[in-house]
Amino acid sequence: MNNRMILYLSGRILQVLGLTMLLPLAVSLIYREPESMFAFIVTAAGLLLSGTVITIRKPEKKDVYAREGMATTAIAWLIVSVFGALPFWISGEIPNFADCIFETASGFTTTGATILNDIEGMSKACLFWRSFTHFLGGMGVLVLMLAIMPQNDTRTMHIVRAESPGPTVGKLVAKMSFSVRILYCMYIALTVMEAIFLLFGGMNLFEALCHAFSTAGTGGFGITNGSIADYDSVYIDVVITVFMGLFGINFSLYYLLLLRKFSQVFKNEELRVFLGICAASILIISLNTMGHYDGFFTALRYASFQVLSIISTTGFATADYTEWPVLSQVIIILLMFVGGCAGSTGGGLKVSRIMTLFKTAVKEIRTALNPRAVITVKCDGKALDQSIIKGVSSYFVVFMFIMVLSMLILALDGHDLGTTTTAVITCMNNVGPGLSKVGPSGNFAGFSEWAKILLSFDMLLGRLEIYPLLILLPFRKK
Amino acid sequence: MNNRMILYLSGRILQVLGLTMLLPLAVSLIYREPESMFAFIVTAAGLLLSGTVITIRKPEKKDVYAREGMATTAIAWLIVSVFGALPFWISGEIPNFADCIFETASGFTTTGATILNDIEGMSKACLFWRSFTHFLGGMGVLVLMLAIMPQNDTRTMHIVRAESPGPTVGKLVAKMSFSVRILYCMYIALTVMEAIFLLFGGMNLFEALCHAFSTAGTGGFGITNGSIADYDSVYIDVVITVFMGLFGINFSLYYLLLLRKFSQVFKNEELRVFLGICAASILIISLNTMGHYDGFFTALRYASFQVLSIISTTGFATADYTEWPVLSQVIIILLMFVGGCAGSTGGGLKVSRIMTLFKTAVKEIRTALNPRAVITVKCDGKALDQSIIKGVSSYFVVFMFIMVLSMLILALDGHDLGTTTTAVITCMNNVGPGLSKVGPSGNFAGFSEWAKILLSFDMLLGRLEIYPLLILLPFRKK
Repeated sequence: MNNRMILYLSGRILQVLGLTMLLPLAVSLIYREPESMFAFIVTAAGLLLSGTVITIRKPEKKDVYAREGMATTAIAWLIVSVFGALPFWISGEIPNFADCIFETASGFTTTGATILNDIEGMSKACLFWRSFTHFLGGMGVLVLMLAIMPQNDTRTMHIVRAESPGPTVGKLVAKMSFSVRILYCMYIALTVMEAIFLLFGGMNLFEALCHAFSTAGTGGFGITNGSIADYDSVYIDVVITVFMGLFGINFSLYYLLLLRKFSQVFKNEELRVFLGICAASILIISLNTMGHYDGFFTALRYASFQVLSIISTTGFATADYTEWPVLSQVIIILLMFVGGCAGSTGGGLKVSRIMTLFKTAVKEIRTALNPRAVITVKCDGKALDQSIIKGVSSYFVVFMFIMVLSMLILALDGHDLGTTTTAVITCMNNVGPGLSKVGPSGNFAGFSEWAKILLSFDMLLGRLEIYPLLILLPFRKK
Repeated sequence: MNNRMILYLSGRILQVLGLTMLLPLAVSLIYREPESMFAFIVTAAGLLLSGTVITIRKPEKKDVYAREGMATTAIAWLIVSVFGALPFWISGEIPNFADCIFETASGFTTTGATILNDIEGMSKACLFWRSFTHFLGGMGVLVLMLAIMPQNDTRTMHIVRAESPGPTVGKLVAKMSFSVRILYCMYIALTVMEAIFLLFGGMNLFEALCHAFSTAGTGGFGITNGSIADYDSVYIDVVITVFMGLFGINFSLYYLLLLRKFSQVFKNEELRVFLGICAASILIISLNTMGHYDGFFTALRYASFQVLSIISTTGFATADYTEWPVLSQVIIILLMFVGGCAGSTGGGLKVSRIMTLFKTAVKEIRTALNPRAVITVKCDGKALDQSIIKGVSSYFVVFMFIMVLSMLILALDGHDLGTTTTAVITCMNNVGPGLSKVGPSGNFAGFSEWAKILLSFDMLLGRLEIYPLLILLPFRKK
């Protein structure tokens, strides 16, 4: 592996991280918060300085292939999770460093799980940073670096492929570095649009930005203990519901919309399945929770918000679904695994993977029943490549094994079965809330330090889709 | 499909089922139980008569291939589940017919889940029949038919393949019909051995036979509400623990032992993994539950029994594991999925499938990290065939989809989340007890009629490994 180049890119990541901290620094200046101002100045300065020192000498060999792409991604995400946590710690707002890492990993991976018991007690700058990490992590920190400091196309390709979620990575235009910029522009445009809508709903600029960032990354950090439920506004619920859906959809479809290729968008199978799952889940949950609320339409409001929140893996809550009937709870848990579309900021297994798994299952059943029939698995009308089908099944199996292993280890922390299992499920799928103690009205404060680090690692495994992080392990080559 | 031949074989199954009822009939004569005597006479007579009428005319074309094998298996198991339930209903001991079907399906599929609140209240003949269905279902009702009424070898092969659990089906000797007889003889021999050991532990002949049958099929029906815990005897615990392990092991290994091919037995990878999983689970659970009991050795006694009971999918209980710490509970749930070895009477996914899934996962990770490396998945030192690997992954995915679908439907019955999910898990893996209301000290009486039928179907899906039953659905051919 080209270790010099990985080091060089890591230096660049330190610089980018330092730069992004200028925004919360500005917030701390506006709201006159000296402790957090100090914390962000120290951290940003340290990051920019160390990043510059590391990148002063450019490596001679600049090759970046699959392995380097994965290693860079893994290191970059460990860097942002640890160094991004410093402001919380230096400002003293989160005294325990394991808590700081959990909160930051949860932010960047757009999980949105929190260890904070008193969210209102935080400084505005730190609250802003929490939500902003969602925005940064949503599209990817390396993608941001590539948008700011472009690299050559092979390099860009291998890094984007390692960082982006989903079974395959598409290019919008022939040149990858240009694709990255288009993506980021659309991402910013959508976020700004949501912020404007929220301003109209009565939020101030700070609130609107924080919530837009949290929605954009499909993260879920709020700025009060009651999160979105505190606003109790149908308008805000609807705006956020719609934007959670929008950020759960493959971004290349928006590019196609810009190019006015409408028919291609509506023919997209993953989009249709995503919308179908949402509609069916909302309908079933609304009918199932009618008795719990005043009637169908109130139920519809909360069900829509919660379904979009969970399937997009945002994790905002306006209702405590742990009080819903069991059927609705089971659907919510299943939606966590489904997640958003490939190429969105959503987590989970991704709709396209679930589609592939389902079609493969149907194909296998039919082949078992008609041994001589030749059946192919199709997506968007084209036969799916065998390597993709195999990759998806393997990913599912690897994902389940790691999930089970995490549950076994986490069980040692002595929480109840519901808390233990759903904490792992919600962290690995980057959702945020689970059931029992980690339900929408609970949080992750009750776990031990080591358990928080384990869950942080699970979030990273989920966000980076496992493989990049494993490259750091000492695997024996054969 | 050769429908005439399927009908003919179904007739034979009716006859065989009628014949097997002569044993509980004898029990009812010995214990002078007129109601159950009447019930078994009527049912046995009806079955023998209708079976004879159906088989009077032999079909001209006697071909049985894969599809016929699967259809026959599916129909045979539906027949035994429905007609095997008649004695419970006719005798009036289980007044609701849905309950009768649940209890019988649970018996034949060797699940051991019960809807009975008062087991002691049943007649001896019915208790005997419950346990005896475990014995019959363990090795398979069609295998029994083939042992009694041999067919030609192709026919036998396709039927055995459809009915026997595990990813592949091995032959002991070149002639399949002879293999079937050897298998049944070894099965009877082991069962008799256990009964003798139990007689020495102070059980009477009736108790010894019932418990030996329940262990042999890895079923788990007891004859008292407290099941094995009522004996509170270390000797009986040890005997049953050992035999649950023995019946969870591939029977072909016993044939190798008879042939004195000891080294082949000990080299068998599935056996070693099975024993390894048992040892590790027992050790961890013993350490984890030490505080719950008087010390390590008491914990070891209950842990060993429970681990062997769950991994072999027997489901006997001497301890209520729902009161254990969470880590132990998570291990118990995972063991349900593992199940016994292929070619044993145990349920679950089977150790060899778990091995294949795990090895494939490791291979995929290593391939992802070293794209140029060529890595093969091996078992017993030989490279596994690609079709087996693909079959195992597909089976896992199909299994999970059906499990999730069942949970969604069962959730409509309105039980808590733990009951709903573990009821499906324990039924599909043919274990018996789950958590919460269906834990070792609970039962399935609280479910609605339709839910009991759904769970009965799940048990059949688990026992027959899904595909045979699906052939009865109207699938569109392509």
